[in-house]
Amino acid sequence: MDFNLSKEQSLIQQMAREFAEKSIAPVAKQIDEESKIPEEVLAGMAELDLFGIPFPEEYGGADGGYDGYVLAMEQIAKVSGGIAMTMAAHTLGLGAISAFGTEEQKKKYMIPGCKAKHIVSFAFTEPGTGSDPKQITTTAVKQGDFYILNGTKRFISNANYPGAMVVFAREMESGEVTAFILDKWAEGYSISEPWEKIGMHGGQLLDVYMKDVKVPADNLLGKIGQGFPILLLGIALGKIGTSTAALGGTLAALEEASKYAREKTHRGQPIAKFQAIQLKIADLAIKYETARWLCYRLGCLANDIKDPGKFAAEAALVKAYCGDNVVDAARIAVDVHGSYGLMRDYTIERVYRDAIIGPEIEGVADMQKLIVASSILRSKG
Amino acid sequence: MDFNLSKEQSLIQQMAREFAEKSIAPVAKQIDEESKIPEEVLAGMAELDLFGIPFPEEYGGADGGYDGYVLAMEQIAKVSGGIAMTMAAHTLGLGAISAFGTEEQKKKYMIPGCKAKHIVSFAFTEPGTGSDPKQITTTAVKQGDFYILNGTKRFISNANYPGAMVVFAREMESGEVTAFILDKWAEGYSISEPWEKIGMHGGQLLDVYMKDVKVPADNLLGKIGQGFPILLLGIALGKIGTSTAALGGTLAALEEASKYAREKTHRGQPIAKFQAIQLKIADLAIKYETARWLCYRLGCLANDIKDPGKFAAEAALVKAYCGDNVVDAARIAVDVHGSYGLMRDYTIERVYRDAIIGPEIEGVADMQKLIVASSILRSKG
Amino acid sequence: MDFNLSKEQSLIQQMAREFAEKSIAPVAKQIDEESKIPEEVLAGMAELDLFGIPFPEEYGGADGGYDGYVLAMEQIAKVSGGIAMTMAAHTLGLGAISAFGTEEQKKKYMIPGCKAKHIVSFAFTEPGTGSDPKQITTTAVKQGDFYILNGTKRFISNANYPGAMVVFAREMESGEVTAFILDKWAEGYSISEPWEKIGMHGGQLLDVYMKDVKVPADNLLGKIGQGFPILLLGIALGKIGTSTAALGGTLAALEEASKYAREKTHRGQPIAKFQAIQLKIADLAIKYETARWLCYRLGCLANDIKDPGKFAAEAALVKAYCGDNVVDAARIAVDVHGSYGLMRDYTIERVYRDAIIGPEIEGVADMQKLIVASSILRSKG
Amino acid sequence: MDFNLSKEQSLIQQMAREFAEKSIAPVAKQIDEESKIPEEVLAGMAELDLFGIPFPEEYGGADGGYDGYVLAMEQIAKVSGGIAMTMAAHTLGLGAISAFGTEEQKKKYMIPGCKAKHIVSFAFTEPGTGSDPKQITTTAVKQGDFYILNGTKRFISNANYPGAMVVFAREMESGEVTAFILDKWAEGYSISEPWEKIGMHGGQLLDVYMKDVKVPADNLLGKIGQGFPILLLGIALGKIGTSTAALGGTLAALEEASKYAREKTHRGQPIAKFQAIQLKIADLAIKYETARWLCYRLGCLANDIKDPGKFAAEAALVKAYCGDNVVDAARIAVDVHGSYGLMRDYTIERVYRDAIIGPEIEGVADMQKLIVASSILRSKG
Repeated sequence: MDFNLSKEQSLIQQMAREFAEKSIAPVAKQIDEESKIPEEVLAGMAELDLFGIPFPEEYGGADGGYDGYVLAMEQIAKVSGGIAMTMAAHTLGLGAISAFGTEEQKKKYMIPGCKAKHIVSFAFTEPGTGSDPKQITTTAVKQGDFYILNGTKRFISNANYPGAMVVFAREMESGEVTAFILDKWAEGYSISEPWEKIGMHGGQLLDVYMKDVKVPADNLLGKIGQGFPILLLGIALGKIGTSTAALGGTLAALEEASKYAREKTHRGQPIAKFQAIQLKIADLAIKYETARWLCYRLGCLANDIKDPGKFAAEAALVKAYCGDNVVDAARIAVDVHGSYGLMRDYTIERVYRDAIIGPEIEGVADMQKLIVASSILRSKG
Repeated sequence: MDFNLSKEQSLIQQMAREFAEKSIAPVAKQIDEESKIPEEVLAGMAELDLFGIPFPEEYGGADGGYDGYVLAMEQIAKVSGGIAMTMAAHTLGLGAISAFGTEEQKKKYMIPGCKAKHIVSFAFTEPGTGSDPKQITTTAVKQGDFYILNGTKRFISNANYPGAMVVFAREMESGEVTAFILDKWAEGYSISEPWEKIGMHGGQLLDVYMKDVKVPADNLLGKIGQGFPILLLGIALGKIGTSTAALGGTLAALEEASKYAREKTHRGQPIAKFQAIQLKIADLAIKYETARWLCYRLGCLANDIKDPGKFAAEAALVKAYCGDNVVDAARIAVDVHGSYGLMRDYTIERVYRDAIIGPEIEGVADMQKLIVASSILRSKG
Repeated sequence: MDFNLSKEQSLIQQMAREFAEKSIAPVAKQIDEESKIPEEVLAGMAELDLFGIPFPEEYGGADGGYDGYVLAMEQIAKVSGGIAMTMAAHTLGLGAISAFGTEEQKKKYMIPGCKAKHIVSFAFTEPGTGSDPKQITTTAVKQGDFYILNGTKRFISNANYPGAMVVFAREMESGEVTAFILDKWAEGYSISEPWEKIGMHGGQLLDVYMKDVKVPADNLLGKIGQGFPILLLGIALGKIGTSTAALGGTLAALEEASKYAREKTHRGQPIAKFQAIQLKIADLAIKYETARWLCYRLGCLANDIKDPGKFAAEAALVKAYCGDNVVDAARIAVDVHGSYGLMRDYTIERVYRDAIIGPEIEGVADMQKLIVASSILRSKG
Repeated sequence: MDFNLSKEQSLIQQMAREFAEKSIAPVAKQIDEESKIPEEVLAGMAELDLFGIPFPEEYGGADGGYDGYVLAMEQIAKVSGGIAMTMAAHTLGLGAISAFGTEEQKKKYMIPGCKAKHIVSFAFTEPGTGSDPKQITTTAVKQGDFYILNGTKRFISNANYPGAMVVFAREMESGEVTAFILDKWAEGYSISEPWEKIGMHGGQLLDVYMKDVKVPADNLLGKIGQGFPILLLGIALGKIGTSTAALGGTLAALEEASKYAREKTHRGQPIAKFQAIQLKIADLAIKYETARWLCYRLGCLANDIKDPGKFAAEAALVKAYCGDNVVDAARIAVDVHGSYGLMRDYTIERVYRDAIIGPEIEGVADMQKLIVASSILRSKG
């Protein structure tokens, strides 16, 4: 065991931290208010390969591993939940293509993705599916060299950007759930207005409507009927991003609360002098440290997944913890701020709204826990 | 002991519930989005005497007691946190005038207040006071038949409406904290833009600037140097409102979650069939019931306060519990909704943002707890 | 609504408090160590009618209502969990006889019960039933004027004392679950060694073995096949006792922690001066107040049960809250004591062990919550 | 970063697990009941070098590092809290000698300690000190080649065994707190009866009375007046043991609950099939994983302490979390067991009582948090 960052890991962390502080922090409030990430921020991130960290250089990636990914994600998420959300969904989509794509598919879709010319999506959820892939109603009908897709997907991140969308549909010949790579903005593809979320503004969730969208047969991802394992892995990879986004929020909560406690005075001394405040700062530190090592370890595990089911259970555990944990943390940090913490003029107000997203997306906390329990209770233990 | 509502109590509750459902609920989302309470809603509330429930009829009130007040407040708050906040601050201000005002002051200020021609404010907090009245820097200098007030007040509810403002200042001859009734919008009175809060939109918090505001000497509330007991009672009365506003939010969380659980299906059956959901509904019911009896009892206690210090400790306990409780409740209710709970299209999203206000205003939860502990630890026990 | 004790309620509370302090407190540690309630304590309780509080005078009771019962129980439980447990199971048993017994049964079994010549039991659980009455395997076979009972009951309170035992068995002619009143120590009745529990020593849980026990046909309680409603009401009544026993433990935690905080010094001043301690005292006070009004109200509700199903849901809610709450409270109180709180020489150590019983008996907390949720989710709400 | 155990680490873990299962588990209930560790268990542990894991071979140790120590401790503590407590105090005492002792002292005291011929103690606390070293009243007066020690120490682990005791006293010439190595059972040394604790039976806490105990001047540990840094490091090292003991308890809770959930049936199926139980199993898994990586990391950090103050803050954070966490975990595991979890016949009853020790010893949780907060709030952040 070694709990020290390697030199490469430190460099990635430092690079992301500097970019976040210099180039994102100054516009983070604006992103929240406008629900839009400025072009120059995306461009800056692209330049630093932040949209392709864990992927091989041959496909445009930075070859930084998922360990590098979590270290960078934490720093970005600390400053802007909306960007973190965008980056998480994108990386999840690329991860699925990376794991199951053909050489050709990888070259075609990963390179512009890693270079952030495209922002990738991953589209499983439908209005009626909940978390159950068996409920999928989107259909894919073979027609010559194409599949014709029809259906509606809900809460799809990045559906407004050009690029690949990994989409799950029922292949009608076999009747089995199957994954495809769809080019967003193909004919017949349209989207709703963005959902108005409580937080993580800038990260876009939209409904996607597919009406007779033609997808080349070459864009089948994996095999017919392989939808479920692709989904399982994709969702598990996605939890690396959402968990670490929550970790970043937890760190923001700790830092904002500590700063406020040092600066705000009561009866002539900083409120940091009061035990009631000190206890909260310590609770925040505990929340950060517990989440941190789970995320860092999950990143390391993701570099070499041997048993996807086991990895999915690990990811579910981390997601369950980090998602709830960041809400606790943000709440404590607001308590440190008192009434000021309710106000848009204070960063912590945004951090709190962003945090609330954590436990609900990519499967609510209880769903994660049922996955964890299933893994434990099935084993002989 | 009797835990049944009297006939009069039931009538007040029913009247408020009906008004809330018929006249507020349809515009609750609009109030949230525009941060403004429609005139016709205020007019409707005025007609039903909802701005003067606990006060004697001779001063324009409904003579419904604070027990009636909590029953009505709960129903209003269930539907709109912003209106609840407005009503709570207003009733607090009137309560202070009712308790310490001269006959003349009561007639002059309570009647238009109870009739909602005026919306009353209570102005203690300053940028540097925190919760410590000794830090007050606003000054009141006697000049003939007037006091000249100078200073800045922070986070003052209803400062944008016309009407009385109970304001605390240091009377400079005695050097002691003293309360005055100031007519809002007197010369020299101005306000900031409203603070942008995370929730309870429609309830306005503003900073108040007093520059040589002339207050008639007759508007001294109580005696010179009596500021502290007036403040103590006022703040305690204010906690009836904020606690019960939180209770209303808790009830909203319970109802929204139950409704969603019955309607939303997963794998063909309502999610209410799953134990994970049932446990959350029960937790919500527990949160509602525990808070409910504290609030109802606090209302009853407020009708006949013999020992203001003891009442203040009771109010602090109720506020500490209900403020945190509603955040827990809203969070659980969002968990029941999953991703949908994050969206503006679902009422629970607003309920959550409103709930977050609860623990922070009128003294953070820890401050309440220190008051409670002080009361217990001083007693012989 | 009225949250003040009536004169009669105050008298019952005061009488129980005085007896608890004078006659139980001095032997409470001994009861814990010996797992046995001294004869003279039982005699003293009998003299004060503490074993028959809610029952009519004609059946030997004190006619104090369940409101009087909860007030007395709280005071007893504050001082000795073991006695509280004994009293709770006994009162539950009598309550079932009172509700469903014939005039003759009531005269025969309630009078010695209320006078504490008998200590009553209520025997539903079996090694395999869990909380499901359908799983009952004890059989009752009609044989002339008798039923012959065979089976094993688990965790039966007071099974070691003489007196009535309300016992549930499958009447074999009808195949339906049916209640009987059995005289403990009839031929064929035997018991196990008491289970060694973590706390509430003095309250005895034993397994009961019935081998061809003859029960007169007149001892059928209610009708054949009426076992389920009798059980439902009995268990609901039992939760008044267990919830209020938990309330008493919560009060003990508050009082012990407050006392310790005032007396124990750190760096020359009482630890009560530190915010960290004050916050805990306040948390204890909140826990006491929230539980208190639930229990008092439940007692009042029990005096006039119109809808047993609704009452059962109310009781389940109170039990769920109070059972968990007392564990939280005892834990906080131990935290106030630090290492000293771990030691038998300090009352809080026993209070903690007693508290742990609360959430587990008469149905675990989650089971209560499922009952609560079922009641809410079924309603139209 | 690397989250995989090295081969050596795996071997230590496996060795400890096997010993715990084969040689401790069968007597764990007996140790609890008799509050005594059987000789053959101590001998077996000695043989495996379990009393000297982190220390160099030249002083009798196993050279396994503190990383090896936490891995072994976890396995031992999973099976017996009492042995874990004994081992933790012993290793703490040796750690202080290892860090500050002269070559001669190390040879003299560490070799028999590591070989478990001696069981070492560390004696700071006094009846009046709380956690404040300035309050120490034990005196050390130089008399020729000896120091004469007088005073009383409280709650001293292992004071009943022969071996070294690191003891803190005020050196009367300088007036400064100073550490000494005292041979237990020297003339003038006596002990109280063991304190009767709620759990971790077999781990002995005693009061120590020193009446004119002669300690050779060579047994001064470190320098005169160096008591505080020795204490600081010693207490920090001690938290490795207590935190990991808590981790072991957490693992026991997870395993016992999982086992029970698989085996216990309700309505014909294992209770593991119910969501309510599954959620609890997942919560236990989360509690284990979060604590686990904190402890493992703390062990690694302890191998190379550069800044004792920083390490102390890290240790305090880990202790604060793990101590509370194990109580939560044990409680959840009892909830899974229901009434059975209250009974001595079920392992979880003991695990719960052992767990309760965790947050209170070596500084209550709040004290840890104040240390953590102080470290954060002092830094520039």
